[in-house]
Amino acid sequence: MLDRIRATFESYGFAPIETPSVEELEILLAKGETDKEIYTIERLQADEHSAGEARLGLHYDLTVPFARYVAQHFNDLVFPFKRYQMQRVWRGERPQAGRFREFTQCDIDVIGIDNLAVTFDAELAAVAMQALEAIGVSGVTLHISNRKILDGFLQGLGLEPAGRVSVIRAIDALHKVGADQTKAAICAVFPDHGDREAIAAKSVALASISETGVELVERVQALGIAHPVLESGLAELSQVMSHLRFLGASNIVADLSIARGFDYYTGTVYEGRFDDAPGFGSIVAGGRYDDLAGAFINKKLPGVGISIGFSRLFVKLLQDKAITHIRRSPADVLIVLPSEDRREIMLVTAQALRKRGFKVETYHAPQKVGKQLSYAEKKGIPFVWFPPFEDGQPHEVKDMASGAQAPAAIENWSPSP
Amino acid sequence: MLDRIRATFESYGFAPIETPSVEELEILLAKGETDKEIYTIERLQADEHSAGEARLGLHYDLTVPFARYVAQHFNDLVFPFKRYQMQRVWRGERPQAGRFREFTQCDIDVIGIDNLAVTFDAELAAVAMQALEAIGVSGVTLHISNRKILDGFLQGLGLEPAGRVSVIRAIDALHKVGADQTKAAICAVFPDHGDREAIAAKSVALASISETGVELVERVQALGIAHPVLESGLAELSQVMSHLRFLGASNIVADLSIARGFDYYTGTVYEGRFDDAPGFGSIVAGGRYDDLAGAFINKKLPGVGISIGFSRLFVKLLQDKAITHIRRSPADVLIVLPSEDRREIMLVTAQALRKRGFKVETYHAPQKVGKQLSYAEKKGIPFVWFPPFEDGQPHEVKDMASGAQAPAAIENWSPSP
Repeated sequence: MLDRIRATFESYGFAPIETPSVEELEILLAKGETDKEIYTIERLQADEHSAGEARLGLHYDLTVPFARYVAQHFNDLVFPFKRYQMQRVWRGERPQAGRFREFTQCDIDVIGIDNLAVTFDAELAAVAMQALEAIGVSGVTLHISNRKILDGFLQGLGLEPAGRVSVIRAIDALHKVGADQTKAAICAVFPDHGDREAIAAKSVALASISETGVELVERVQALGIAHPVLESGLAELSQVMSHLRFLGASNIVADLSIARGFDYYTGTVYEGRFDDAPGFGSIVAGGRYDDLAGAFINKKLPGVGISIGFSRLFVKLLQDKAITHIRRSPADVLIVLPSEDRREIMLVTAQALRKRGFKVETYHAPQKVGKQLSYAEKKGIPFVWFPPFEDGQPHEVKDMASGAQAPAAIENWSPSP
Repeated sequence: MLDRIRATFESYGFAPIETPSVEELEILLAKGETDKEIYTIERLQADEHSAGEARLGLHYDLTVPFARYVAQHFNDLVFPFKRYQMQRVWRGERPQAGRFREFTQCDIDVIGIDNLAVTFDAELAAVAMQALEAIGVSGVTLHISNRKILDGFLQGLGLEPAGRVSVIRAIDALHKVGADQTKAAICAVFPDHGDREAIAAKSVALASISETGVELVERVQALGIAHPVLESGLAELSQVMSHLRFLGASNIVADLSIARGFDYYTGTVYEGRFDDAPGFGSIVAGGRYDDLAGAFINKKLPGVGISIGFSRLFVKLLQDKAITHIRRSPADVLIVLPSEDRREIMLVTAQALRKRGFKVETYHAPQKVGKQLSYAEKKGIPFVWFPPFEDGQPHEVKDMASGAQAPAAIENWSPSP
């Protein structure tokens, strides 16, 4: 599955990077206190040569190490810089269903200097969805919005920053709690505001817009609120959606209820969820940010990133029994050793088949053929190869599924005749 | 490189496993005090829910986690169990040239219940050397011995266990310090022994036997020492070498100076070194052990394992400039965006080429063609694709190496005409 995700990332020209699992604690905390629980590491037998060494921690995401990497290698990179990174990360959370303390993330990001075309925001959405398709995941919709839409709309409604943050937080729960509860939550933000009912109604009306076609702008305009930030967000989201149509992407919807991470994301935001299990939470997430590495380098590096929560996804596929059969051996073929004097021909046959690209196990001892067949069966090896028991006889291959056995030649045998 | 190693491992039917980076400290220390420096981990904001949790550490090799894994999943495994594992490991050592605190190991092991055919010892050597070949590493010789040979020979000389250990330790340095110094070291072990010169001479004579042909047994017998443990070791090593000949393996030599890890290995021992840089140390190492998981399960599980020190190998290849060219993009093709109205055809062309298996970047903005070409050049993308600037014109492709540009069709273009 990781190979297929990787191949999809590379098919769009994303370059692989890997960073150490360990960073200096100072780097991990450079963006201020994080809500992610960090694991620190220490040598069991710390001695004098550890005095004065920096405190170290395991990375809790791939974004902070990536920011450190970009700052460190800035002069060697060509921008826009497109990278992917598939590594384990660690968070000291209480483990629970679908939440791990050690798990694998698959991240792609594009970074520009000073500015970055919004078309990359579309590309990332397409790549992420194609990666899911490549590993056979269906029933996931990627919900896209642009933070400027909700924020500009609320500015158009005359709300101050603090009020906007509270409303956005309420709307973030809309798809979980429904319209009525969300409206009530918004009203509770402004107990003394005469227009609170209207604000709540308008906000929920906006956030309820979910659009795969081209009527996005019209539907928002019909709500009668205007603000330059709103216009800008709408223009960007429209451009992303039309770019996605050109790319032939599917299962992607403009969904104005998506808010995500108030302080970090500044434009496009993504959230991919299983249609039939909204409570499972997002398995794809990300967005556009103004500056990747401000804590490490005096350059403005805007970017857009999206992350596939591989481990959570894997759990869901196991739960759904979409992953069922786990082969105990990758081998295509087991070659039988009928008697000790056939060892050379067994090994020579194996090497010849490996040269042809097959994965081949050889049996280790001249035990009863029944025992050797049973080994192949238990390991799920689909074909058993019999070298000639005596010189002059042909090789034969048994198809373990059908039971059929037929003569075969090393130079042209193939699994499906 | 890791992909090729993996493909080689799988071509012999080894199954992949991965274990967590983190194990309980008790597990990591189960075999008694280790000489490897362990990193422990702790949550930065430890609170009440961490009280009573087991202390955790990062694994320092892949053998201990594998032993824990086999014990835990014993009933689900089919034996002989052949697994490979390619993961990072951590050791709190002082970093120096070719030594890292975080590095990648590639391990293969075969585990049996109660007993395990010695032919697997040959298979492992062949697989490891083929993996090196698959990643273009040359100039490495795999030295194989069997610990019983040296130990049985020294028993045949009448030495007690403590003396044997000291002699073996001295012989372990033979290939570094030479015969004279090794003899002196052995003599120093038995200051009061009348035959110490003869013991030293015989031991060094044995350890100097290095044999790729079939005369191994004769050369040892010519030294005139007999002992059942010696005979057993010689029989095993001979069988391993003849199995390797059947497999067509090369650059493998029976070398009786190889001793390695006195307490752990009990039969075959391997050590792979660069011929031209013996001081660089081993990049492949391993051997046969009596019992993998005795600390965790009441079963006798003998095994044989070999490990490729991937990170050290990588450093050597960088040093030797065997790895030089690092592409900044995996893309085969960059598609130019001549003007905004060509965006759709650019994206559609990209998707069609990706479907054909090519890795394709699209340029993000209709900037000057010279700038777009320069982007391809800086990222090392070998082909630049020009969609028709106007309808009715053909697509064209420029080969960045030769500068040649020619019409091309989406459905049958290929990089090498």
